[in-house]
Amino acid sequence: MRAVDIIRRKRLGEELSRAEINFLISGFTNGTIPDYQISAFLMAVYFVGMTDQETVGLTEEMLHSGSMVDLSDIPGEKVDKHSTGGVGDKTSLIIAPLAAAAGVIVPMISGRGLGHTGGTLDKLESIPGFDVGLDLKRFRSVLDHAGCALIGQTQEIAPADKKLYSLRDVTATIDSVPLITGSILSKKLAEGITGLVLDVKVGSGAFMKNGDSARELAEKLNSTARRMGVRSVALLTDMNQPLGSHVGNALEVKESIDVMRGGGPEDLKELCLVLAAHMLVLGKVASGVEEGKRQVARLIDSGAGLERFMKMVELQGGDPRAIENPKLLAQSAHHREVLAPRDGYVTRIDTEALGTAAMLLGAGRETVDGVIDPAVGLIVHRKIGAEVSKGEPLLSLHYNGDSRLENVQQMVSGAYDIQDTPPTIEPLIKATLEPEDDES
Amino acid sequence: MRAVDIIRRKRLGEELSRAEINFLISGFTNGTIPDYQISAFLMAVYFVGMTDQETVGLTEEMLHSGSMVDLSDIPGEKVDKHSTGGVGDKTSLIIAPLAAAAGVIVPMISGRGLGHTGGTLDKLESIPGFDVGLDLKRFRSVLDHAGCALIGQTQEIAPADKKLYSLRDVTATIDSVPLITGSILSKKLAEGITGLVLDVKVGSGAFMKNGDSARELAEKLNSTARRMGVRSVALLTDMNQPLGSHVGNALEVKESIDVMRGGGPEDLKELCLVLAAHMLVLGKVASGVEEGKRQVARLIDSGAGLERFMKMVELQGGDPRAIENPKLLAQSAHHREVLAPRDGYVTRIDTEALGTAAMLLGAGRETVDGVIDPAVGLIVHRKIGAEVSKGEPLLSLHYNGDSRLENVQQMVSGAYDIQDTPPTIEPLIKATLEPEDDES
Repeated sequence: MRAVDIIRRKRLGEELSRAEINFLISGFTNGTIPDYQISAFLMAVYFVGMTDQETVGLTEEMLHSGSMVDLSDIPGEKVDKHSTGGVGDKTSLIIAPLAAAAGVIVPMISGRGLGHTGGTLDKLESIPGFDVGLDLKRFRSVLDHAGCALIGQTQEIAPADKKLYSLRDVTATIDSVPLITGSILSKKLAEGITGLVLDVKVGSGAFMKNGDSARELAEKLNSTARRMGVRSVALLTDMNQPLGSHVGNALEVKESIDVMRGGGPEDLKELCLVLAAHMLVLGKVASGVEEGKRQVARLIDSGAGLERFMKMVELQGGDPRAIENPKLLAQSAHHREVLAPRDGYVTRIDTEALGTAAMLLGAGRETVDGVIDPAVGLIVHRKIGAEVSKGEPLLSLHYNGDSRLENVQQMVSGAYDIQDTPPTIEPLIKATLEPEDDES
Repeated sequence: MRAVDIIRRKRLGEELSRAEINFLISGFTNGTIPDYQISAFLMAVYFVGMTDQETVGLTEEMLHSGSMVDLSDIPGEKVDKHSTGGVGDKTSLIIAPLAAAAGVIVPMISGRGLGHTGGTLDKLESIPGFDVGLDLKRFRSVLDHAGCALIGQTQEIAPADKKLYSLRDVTATIDSVPLITGSILSKKLAEGITGLVLDVKVGSGAFMKNGDSARELAEKLNSTARRMGVRSVALLTDMNQPLGSHVGNALEVKESIDVMRGGGPEDLKELCLVLAAHMLVLGKVASGVEEGKRQVARLIDSGAGLERFMKMVELQGGDPRAIENPKLLAQSAHHREVLAPRDGYVTRIDTEALGTAAMLLGAGRETVDGVIDPAVGLIVHRKIGAEVSKGEPLLSLHYNGDSRLENVQQMVSGAYDIQDTPPTIEPLIKATLEPEDDES
């Protein structure tokens, strides 16, 4: 078998066999197939795509390039949620403990932020002492005691994905549906889960700017997960504006605590209820989404979700007092309001620009080795559809250094469109996709 | 400027600027852009193509990665011919001296055979003593004295092409029209030519098996040459059977001498007349193709072409007695005839299989460092349309070792289709394409 022949077959649109996919992925992981052949292969996949069968093969080969967490001796269903990334998306912090409080095991291996999107690990690290670098043994132990645990990817999980992702990043082959599917599912399925809720973001702050490509990804994720024996549901959700109002690490932890305490902005609260409810359904502790939402609402009201969150924080080395009193989280030295330049309605927010602005203030990283300032970010006061008067604050910038402040201020001002007539408001949840033969 | 952004733009079908193409090609040549980015770029070009403007940019950047031969102080037009490769294609050996005898300067830098196709350099090296490795100074000196010279590519000529070709070879990105165009023209234009005749082969023995892709290549070659200031004409010619009857290095030199002496098979003779006539037209020593053909025929009859060939052979260190007496060329120890298995008409010859058979006998190389036996090859006795009787020889294998003989014999027998009814015969010259605004 020769790599060049496999590349040619893919290029011609032929379906690769499992043996061929294995040859490429294992050869790439162990270094016998050079980068330059794999990058040509990835570009051919970008253009030609992959069948469901090939995508399963790719995902399984990537999964088996590393270890899998074996949770079979922990009773109950193991369900995770994955989001394709957005701005202000802090749902993981809220729903992992809520689902755990309802009796679902939530083994969540998350990522860091890059570019305009935030990362769950960065948010958690703004809690003093919180350790996202647990090894798999301690991960299991937290799961045993709290029902949920949130850590970063370890060296043992899907090493092929790490290597492939680095190559895709520098060869403009990130945005390919089968490659994204393999990357997401190889890591998620290594967690030993039985169910997975997929939150596919669409809009100006998401990687997928349009609904067609997001739907294609959601369908591929669903069909691949199902063929690999994991029950899943995929939601297409709106990312044309930040989710909630807080963007930035400590700011988002604070807003997450607000939601777990029964407060917080409506959109964030609603999405958390729905996502957690789907986790409860896949986790077999709720018979349907509506019942799931009612259970989750009760777990918020009773404080059981927050309690579970504090338990996890404590078990992972974090200071639970910072949850009881969020003023103990990092605070920025300064803030400045950005004002509406005219009367009218907010019709559009360039959400990627807001995410990039938060990054430039220090809330995210431009390169993988960038350093994060947990305190900084922005708070959105006016969202799409809001009526504003000239001079009213649209959002506040929370910052420490001011070297990039003018730049950032211009960027966020330019991100808002204000018009005379109100816009049509996109629904928060655009679609719910369940694998066909999974509807029972 | 970042390579990844340029790759993405190409992937999205956007037209690259000259600065972007320069950035990629010069960065690749000097090693600052890694192979894995260039191979992803090449695969994107395979799928998206390149505009004429981009193809010119690519070709010029490849050309300027090395030296150009400056022939401006040699009076007269400098015209070369390039063939895209086939089986039994020995026209270069014949037409270079004929065009030189007519007063055209022919600075020909040629290649070696690889896979099923032969190479001009390998053929010439079957003449005892012939040196294809002249440096550019001696190349000029031969040109000055013989009007034609035939050498191999030097390190100084288009080093970017050498590096790109190696990468294309292992990433299944050989068969892309703009990449082929850049590869051919960057080397040919480095010869300092003012005119170029392109022989684009189509058929079972060519790289382009179908007419559409061959025509697309011919048009791209023409338009790119024209935009780069070189007058050109492209012929689409039949490669559904070997050209002439001899395949193999010394065998092809012998057949070339036959043609220069006024003999040889009709198809080879006809194509040489037409190709040389186009060289005379581009070289401004003939006013039209028909007149050119008459001039070339006279140069054959007078022996002036053969005399010019002998002069070149002598100046390049070869033994001219082997031209006067081709029995002095290498001869194989054995030959064996392959017989028709039934009565009927030859309707099809898998010409790539014949080329591969000759290679397996030792006439070509499987890998770039393979060693060639100049004596071996095959002689075709029956071509497409011939009526054959069972037991009559279709071709003869000329061989030294017999380790692969059974294998080769099976391969060539299987390459012939013999049917009850005669086939339609494809014309030898399928089309003649001249750049639109070059017709004056």
